Amino acid sequence: MSNAKNEIRLFAPATVANVSCGFDVLGFCLDSIGDEMVVRKTGKKGIFITKIEGYDLPYVASLNVAGVSALAMYATLDIDYGFEIEIYKRIKPGSGVGSSAASAVGSVYGMNELMGGPFNKVQLTTFAMKGEALASQCEHADNLAPAIFGGFTLVKSVQPMDILQIPSPSDVFATIIHPQIEIKTADSRAILPKVVALSDAIVQWANVGSLVHALHTSDYELMRRSLKDVIVEPYRSKLIPFYHEVKDAALQAGALGAGIAGSGPSIFALSKGKDTALKVQDAMRALYATTAIPFETYVSKINTQGIKIL
Amino acid sequence: MSNAKNEIRLFAPATVANVSCGFDVLGFCLDSIGDEMVVRKTGKKGIFITKIEGYDLPYVASLNVAGVSALAMYATLDIDYGFEIEIYKRIKPGSGVGSSAASAVGSVYGMNELMGGPFNKVQLTTFAMKGEALASQCEHADNLAPAIFGGFTLVKSVQPMDILQIPSPSDVFATIIHPQIEIKTADSRAILPKVVALSDAIVQWANVGSLVHALHTSDYELMRRSLKDVIVEPYRSKLIPFYHEVKDAALQAGALGAGIAGSGPSIFALSKGKDTALKVQDAMRALYATTAIPFETYVSKINTQGIKIL
Repeated sequence: MSNAKNEIRLFAPATVANVSCGFDVLGFCLDSIGDEMVVRKTGKKGIFITKIEGYDLPYVASLNVAGVSALAMYATLDIDYGFEIEIYKRIKPGSGVGSSAASAVGSVYGMNELMGGPFNKVQLTTFAMKGEALASQCEHADNLAPAIFGGFTLVKSVQPMDILQIPSPSDVFATIIHPQIEIKTADSRAILPKVVALSDAIVQWANVGSLVHALHTSDYELMRRSLKDVIVEPYRSKLIPFYHEVKDAALQAGALGAGIAGSGPSIFALSKGKDTALKVQDAMRALYATTAIPFETYVSKINTQGIKIL
Repeated sequence: MSNAKNEIRLFAPATVANVSCGFDVLGFCLDSIGDEMVVRKTGKKGIFITKIEGYDLPYVASLNVAGVSALAMYATLDIDYGFEIEIYKRIKPGSGVGSSAASAVGSVYGMNELMGGPFNKVQLTTFAMKGEALASQCEHADNLAPAIFGGFTLVKSVQPMDILQIPSPSDVFATIIHPQIEIKTADSRAILPKVVALSDAIVQWANVGSLVHALHTSDYELMRRSLKDVIVEPYRSKLIPFYHEVKDAALQAGALGAGIAGSGPSIFALSKGKDTALKVQDAMRALYATTAIPFETYVSKINTQGIKIL
C-alpha cells in the first residue's frame, strides 16, 4: 500500500429512472437524498462489508449490492490488499429512487478513488451494473448513470455501455413522494407487456426526442409537453395507490410533469423553480394525508455532479 | 387586389422522413432536389392548377396534392380573388423523398407569401397535411415539417401540430439513391406490424434521444451509433431490391448511417463531409450498376432554409 489516502467517505445520491417517456433509458440525479458510504483499504485481500446502518441488508459481499459491484471490479485487479465498505443507508431499499444503484456505485467509485482512478466513469458503471443486477434481476443502468455522471443521462446501450450526459437546465427541481408500501421490482417488471402498439411507441419516442431537445434548449414548456408515458404508466400505476390523484395534484400545483420514479412506488414531479417544487410537495402531501398510507416527501435540485467525496 | 406582388416562384425541396430511428417523427430537408412551383393571384375565386410539367398528375384541384392543401387554406380565407398554381415537378412521385410533401407545401407557402404572410409555419404545415393525406391516406407531417422549416425536424405531434427544429451540424451531407421501381405507400404502410416488442421500442427511443443529442452536440460518431432502425427497416427493406447490399456499401464507404427514405424505395445515407458523401454515392452506384434496375443518385447538403422564393 502506498502512502496515499486509505479511506474515503462518499455521498451516493438517489436517482430517478425513466423520467416518464424514457423507460430503461433516461434518468436524473437527486441532491437532497442519498446514502453515505466509507470505503477503506485493508491489508487483507478481498471485499469486506464491515458496517451497515439504516436498513437490514446482508453483510456477505456476494449477497450485497455494494459487495457484488465491488467484487466485479476487484476481480479485474491484481493487488495485494482489499477494501472495507461501510454503508450508511438513507435511501430505503425498494423505494424506486435508486437505492440499490447508490450502493452499487458507491463501492466501486470509492475503490477507484483510493486506487488513483484507474477506471473511467463508463467502466465504473459497468462494474456497478453487476451489483444492480443482484437487486433487480436484470442488467440496467438507468439509475447508475445519473448516480455516477450526475444531471440527466441517457443510457443509449449497456452492451457496449454508452452513456450520454444531457444538459440539465438550472431551474429544474424535483419533488418526490415515497408512499411507504413495498413493490417488488420483479412484480413491477412482470406487469409490463412484452409487446406494445407501434402507434404508442411512436408517441413515446417523439417524447424522448423532444425531452432531450427541451433539456438542450432549456425549454420548460416543451418539457411539460414531453413528460408523458403512454407505455409503462398505464400498467405500473395500478401498483401505486392514488397514483393518478397524486399526479393530478402535482400538475395542478404547477409541475411540468409527474410520473413513476423507476419501478415505483415513489412518484416524482419536475418543476421550474424551487417555489413551484415546494408547492407541488404541499399538494402531494395534502393528497396523501387523506389516505392511511404513511409517506415521505423530498424536494431536490438536480444534482449535476453525481456521487461525490465528502 | 393590392399592388403587391401577384406572382411568386418557389423551390419546394425534397425531404427524407424517418431518418432510421425516428419513424413518423424525424425528417431532414434536401438542397439539390426539389420542385419548382409558381403561385399567382387571379381575379377569379378558387384554386386553379394551370400547368403541370414533369409528371402526369391531375389538374383538378381536389384530386391534386398541391390543390388539396391550397383548398384547405383557401376555405379559411374571406377574399375576393383566387390562386393559380403551376407545378414543375422534378421529384418523381412515389420516390420516397417527399414528392407529395413538396407539392403540398409549395402551394400554401406561395399563397401565404402573396397575401403578406397571415399564417405561421405551423399553420402552413397543418394546411399542407391535408394535401399529404391525399397521397398517403394518413395525416403525417414528417416530410412537410423539414420542407417548410428546413434542417432536421421532429414532429412531436400533429394534433396539435408541434414541430421542433433540431440543429443541423454544418458538415452533414446526404446521399440518395432512387431505384426506379414503384412501391405504393399503402403497401409500405400495410407491411408494418401493429405491435412491436417493447425491447425493440426501447432501443428505438434510445436512438431517437441520442440522435437528437448528437445533432445538438455535432457528435458525428454518436450519429453513427444512433442511425439504426430495429422497428421498420426489417419489414420495409423487403420491398427494396438489394437494400442491405446498398446499405452495406454506403457504410463501407464511410457513411455515418443509411436507411430507407420515408416509405422507400429511395435509400439515404448521411455522411460527415461532402467528399465522403460522394464516395458513398460512388459505392451505391457501383452496387446498383450490377443490377438490371435503373436508378438515380443525388448528393445534397442539408438544406437548413427549407422552401424558398426563387
